[in-house]
Amino acid sequence: MARVIRVDLEYEGTRYHGFALQPGLLTIQGVLEEVLATVVGHPVRVTPAGRTDAGVHARGQVISFQTTSRIPAEAISRALNARLPCDIVAGASTEAAPDFDARRAARRRTYRYAIWNGARPNLWVRRYSWHVPHRLDLAAMQTASELAVGRHDFTSFIGRAAEETREKSPVRTVYAARWSRDGDMLYFDCTADAFGRHMVRNLVGTLLWVGTGRLESAGFRQILQARDRRAAGPTAPAHGLTLMNVDYDDQEGQR
Amino acid sequence: MARVIRVDLEYEGTRYHGFALQPGLLTIQGVLEEVLATVVGHPVRVTPAGRTDAGVHARGQVISFQTTSRIPAEAISRALNARLPCDIVAGASTEAAPDFDARRAARRRTYRYAIWNGARPNLWVRRYSWHVPHRLDLAAMQTASELAVGRHDFTSFIGRAAEETREKSPVRTVYAARWSRDGDMLYFDCTADAFGRHMVRNLVGTLLWVGTGRLESAGFRQILQARDRRAAGPTAPAHGLTLMNVDYDDQEGQR
Repeated sequence: MARVIRVDLEYEGTRYHGFALQPGLLTIQGVLEEVLATVVGHPVRVTPAGRTDAGVHARGQVISFQTTSRIPAEAISRALNARLPCDIVAGASTEAAPDFDARRAARRRTYRYAIWNGARPNLWVRRYSWHVPHRLDLAAMQTASELAVGRHDFTSFIGRAAEETREKSPVRTVYAARWSRDGDMLYFDCTADAFGRHMVRNLVGTLLWVGTGRLESAGFRQILQARDRRAAGPTAPAHGLTLMNVDYDDQEGQR
Repeated sequence: MARVIRVDLEYEGTRYHGFALQPGLLTIQGVLEEVLATVVGHPVRVTPAGRTDAGVHARGQVISFQTTSRIPAEAISRALNARLPCDIVAGASTEAAPDFDARRAARRRTYRYAIWNGARPNLWVRRYSWHVPHRLDLAAMQTASELAVGRHDFTSFIGRAAEETREKSPVRTVYAARWSRDGDMLYFDCTADAFGRHMVRNLVGTLLWVGTGRLESAGFRQILQARDRRAAGPTAPAHGLTLMNVDYDDQEGQR
C-alpha cells in the first residue's frame, strides 16, 4: 500500500525559477523530485503547501508525496540532505495519513516580507530583503494593513497569470497583517487561508505608497474595494518574500 | 597636495580571490581600485588594514588611499556604492591625516570565526559559517583559548606562503580570544595586534580538537610551545571567517 510522507522544507529561492516544474528550467520541484526518486527508488510527484514564485524563499514549506518504499520516514530527511544542493534543506520527514495532501489540508499560510530600510545597502541581507532607503511611516502602514484583515475580495491585489483561463475566486480570509521593526529591518507578516498570485508582494507595494505618504488609509481602503488590479501599487520584488509557516488542523499531516 | 582618504568597508568574500590584487583574478582590491579610479579621475592604489584571504568576509575593513581629487570625502562612499557590485559596500569615507596608512596605523584587528553547530545544515548562514555537526565542549575550548592570550611565538598556528622568502616575526600579542553561543551558532572572537597567515583559522581548527575531546588544554599549550606548524590542527575553512573591526589610536585615521 502506498504511504504518504510529509517533509518540512527550507530553501533560498535565488537560483530557482520558482517551486513549480517548468521544462528546461531549474525549479525546487524539479530538484526535489529528481533527488527523492533516488531516495525511494521510484518516480515521485510532490505536492507543496504553497507554490512559491521565482526568487521567493521558504523557511516553513511543507510537501507531501506518495511512496511504495519501506524506508523509515525519518530517514528520508537525512537522505535528502546528503543529496540536495546547499540551498535546499529538509527538516522533519514524517509519516502522514494516507489521504494527506500538503496543499489541500493546509488551513493557513504565513508569509514574511522583509524590507531593509537603512540609508546604505546591507550586503548581508541583500538576498532576503528589498532595500528601500526612503523614510517610511510604519504606524500608517500598520493602520492600512489592518483594513486587509478579514474576508475580502482581493482582486485589486491578485495578479492574473497569462496562462490562467478559468476564473478562481479572489476571495481570501486574511487572519493577520502585522508590521514590525528590528533596527533598520522591517518585516510584514501576513497570515491567510490562502494567497492569490503575487498577493503579499502587491499588498507590500501598495502599503509602501502609504508609508511614503503618497496614499492614506482611506485610499488604501478604496483600492481594496475597487476590485481592480490597476488601482493598486506595483509588485514588490520577489527576493524580499519568504514562506514562513503552514498550519494544519491538529493531527492532520501527522500520523 | 595629495589628500589621504579613509574608507570603511564591508564585503562578502565568497566570489573573490581575496583582498590582494592578483593578475587575471577577481579580487576586492582589483574591483575597488578600478571603481575608485572612475570616482576620483586618476589611478588609485589602496592599502587595507588587513589583507583578507580568498573567501574571507569583512564587516569592519578599513582602507586608505591618496588622491589629488577635490571631491568631498563623504561623497566618495556614495559614489562607490552607486558603482560597486552588491557584495561590496562602503561605509563612512573620511578625510585622514596626510601620513595615514590604514595598515601601518592599525593597532588591533578583531576577527570572528562562526560555526553552525546544528545537526542539520542551516542554509541561511551557509556562506558565513562552517557547519560542524559534532557535539563541542565550549567550556574546554574557552579554557584552551585563554592560553593563546598574551605575547607568544605563534609559529605553530601561522601558515607559510609558498612565495614568502624573508622570515617575518611570528610573535604576536593576542588581547582577547572568546567563544560565545547564540542558539546553535558558535562565535570565536579574537583580537590581536596583528595576525599571521591563516592564524585564526588554524587556532579554530586546533581548538575544535579540544572541543571534540581529542586534545586537552595541556596539549593545546604544548602545541603553542612547539613552534611547529605540523603540531597544530587543520586550517578551518575560509568562509567562516570575518574581519570585524580594526582599532586605531584616537585621532589617527581621522582628521
